[in-house]
Amino acid sequence: MDQIAPKAKPHEELAAILGPEMAEVDGLIRARMASDNAPRIPEITAHLVEAGGKRLRPLLTLAAARLCGYSGPYHVHLAATVEFIHTATLLHDDVVDESAQRRGRPTANLMWDNKSSVLVGDYLFSRSFQLMVETGSLRVLDILANASATIAEGEVLQLTAAQDLATDEAIYLQVVRGKTAALFAAATEVGGVIAGADEAWVTALHAYGDALGISFQIVDDLLDYGGSSTSLGKNTGDDFRERKLTLPVIKAVALADTKERAFWSRVIEDGDQRSGDLEQAMEIMHQHGTLEATRAEAVLWANKAKAALDDLPQGEIRGLLAGLADYVVSRVK
Amino acid sequence: MDQIAPKAKPHEELAAILGPEMAEVDGLIRARMASDNAPRIPEITAHLVEAGGKRLRPLLTLAAARLCGYSGPYHVHLAATVEFIHTATLLHDDVVDESAQRRGRPTANLMWDNKSSVLVGDYLFSRSFQLMVETGSLRVLDILANASATIAEGEVLQLTAAQDLATDEAIYLQVVRGKTAALFAAATEVGGVIAGADEAWVTALHAYGDALGISFQIVDDLLDYGGSSTSLGKNTGDDFRERKLTLPVIKAVALADTKERAFWSRVIEDGDQRSGDLEQAMEIMHQHGTLEATRAEAVLWANKAKAALDDLPQGEIRGLLAGLADYVVSRVK
Repeated sequence: MDQIAPKAKPHEELAAILGPEMAEVDGLIRARMASDNAPRIPEITAHLVEAGGKRLRPLLTLAAARLCGYSGPYHVHLAATVEFIHTATLLHDDVVDESAQRRGRPTANLMWDNKSSVLVGDYLFSRSFQLMVETGSLRVLDILANASATIAEGEVLQLTAAQDLATDEAIYLQVVRGKTAALFAAATEVGGVIAGADEAWVTALHAYGDALGISFQIVDDLLDYGGSSTSLGKNTGDDFRERKLTLPVIKAVALADTKERAFWSRVIEDGDQRSGDLEQAMEIMHQHGTLEATRAEAVLWANKAKAALDDLPQGEIRGLLAGLADYVVSRVK
Repeated sequence: MDQIAPKAKPHEELAAILGPEMAEVDGLIRARMASDNAPRIPEITAHLVEAGGKRLRPLLTLAAARLCGYSGPYHVHLAATVEFIHTATLLHDDVVDESAQRRGRPTANLMWDNKSSVLVGDYLFSRSFQLMVETGSLRVLDILANASATIAEGEVLQLTAAQDLATDEAIYLQVVRGKTAALFAAATEVGGVIAGADEAWVTALHAYGDALGISFQIVDDLLDYGGSSTSLGKNTGDDFRERKLTLPVIKAVALADTKERAFWSRVIEDGDQRSGDLEQAMEIMHQHGTLEATRAEAVLWANKAKAALDDLPQGEIRGLLAGLADYVVSRVK
């Protein structure tokens, strides 16, 4: 499980191998994002579709189905489904976080209004639901219904855990599972289920998606304290300003002396943030090594993701899924 | 199809006849509204459950299933499902409308915040989705997925149609079908489907719910210009202040002379509302008889609802469903 440093990014290689199916997914997404009746809907959804993004979740579904030898048409529906659920949660997240940028573009809540973001999110969620019903698989519906509930629970938990220094690593993990890993895990799992794969494979796909999602989110939270604004389309320090308790801060709070605890209490709990506070937070986290410790945790989950792949058939797809886990953590040095 | 003036309200009689099943629905709603992981969720959902409401939609599902001779357990799941979808849309509506009161109590967005209302609405929608998956009926899932999409489309359409004097009766009907009738129609239809009823019965149940929902919403919109604040838990004139184009206004705009058109343009399109404007709007609508014409439309839809019942088995339940259609329009004189 050494680090691999691939020339092309693994998700780009996956996208190339799964090119024709990804094109079908894109076509289905465009077709189902439309609405004849409410012209505001295609305006907003076009804004989101054009922004692109890596389409990581649909790629995971297609890869899982291919890995399990699926030859039917419904992995395309499921790939579009998970992208719709993801896009719906982004629309609602941007309302909740009062975000101004997403994927380097102004957010829909800024371009239109919060009302449109709430309702178009609901519309996309309903459309995702229609797509999965079309697969005719009750098991797939069950997995995605449970994932949806876990996502919503995780988002509410994140809301109440913010600004609360009592938030510990266990709560953080629950939030991360909800906001990110639940959909990653469902995306890979349904790929196996629709292929009629053995239970051991389905379990392995779920475990891979779960661990990959956790690693991905930990890295995302870490980048918020060190990534560059241009590569993320998101400003460094957003979580700090929103008083979110993410792993680097949680670890620093756990190690804080009296003076540091007073600092965290002022900036996170009281929300009394002054010029230079973000820099001081970074300094404290560097001193305690919590940014490095957070990266180590991300590597640990990436390794768990790779280990889960052992139960799945060897080959190019499996190799790229392993490479993807390495790539996720390679985003932070 | 004369007006009936029943002693007990028909939905109260239905609730009495279906008492044990309604108790099961209430129990299921309470159990599934909970969340072990995010304590904010039960706080908000308890606030909504305690507020009560008529539980009209679950009652319709139970009544439809009983009417079609169903003896299994899943009408209870479906009744809870439609109430969850309804409650989720109320939470999101209150955010979109910036409402302060619902069922005579402060709204969740006022008691907590918009963020919680958005996310807890998402949670309830996911929970409804889990409940319907448990029924194991793909047809039911299909009906409810389509209804959900129609609801979201209707809400977006309402948002863009507001403040636009070009909104005509056809657009209004589409909005009403989305925001209200789609869920009424799905509620009655799935009751028949879960009972394995004949297609003719299922079609009749859908038609009944659709027409009842349209009548119900027209009356609601009419009450906004004439109901009393205490009985509605909602202040008269809300739609006017929110610049919503509802049927009495749409009819008045269609009949407006130049001076009246300037008035509507100022208060609805420009949103320049002054003291006395609501009274003047009422005066104009009375002069053109649009409030009376709106009531006539509601009666027409109530009669359509009753006519749809002709294809269904005679008896106490059918009589009460007919009575309910009359009761809906009896709310306005």
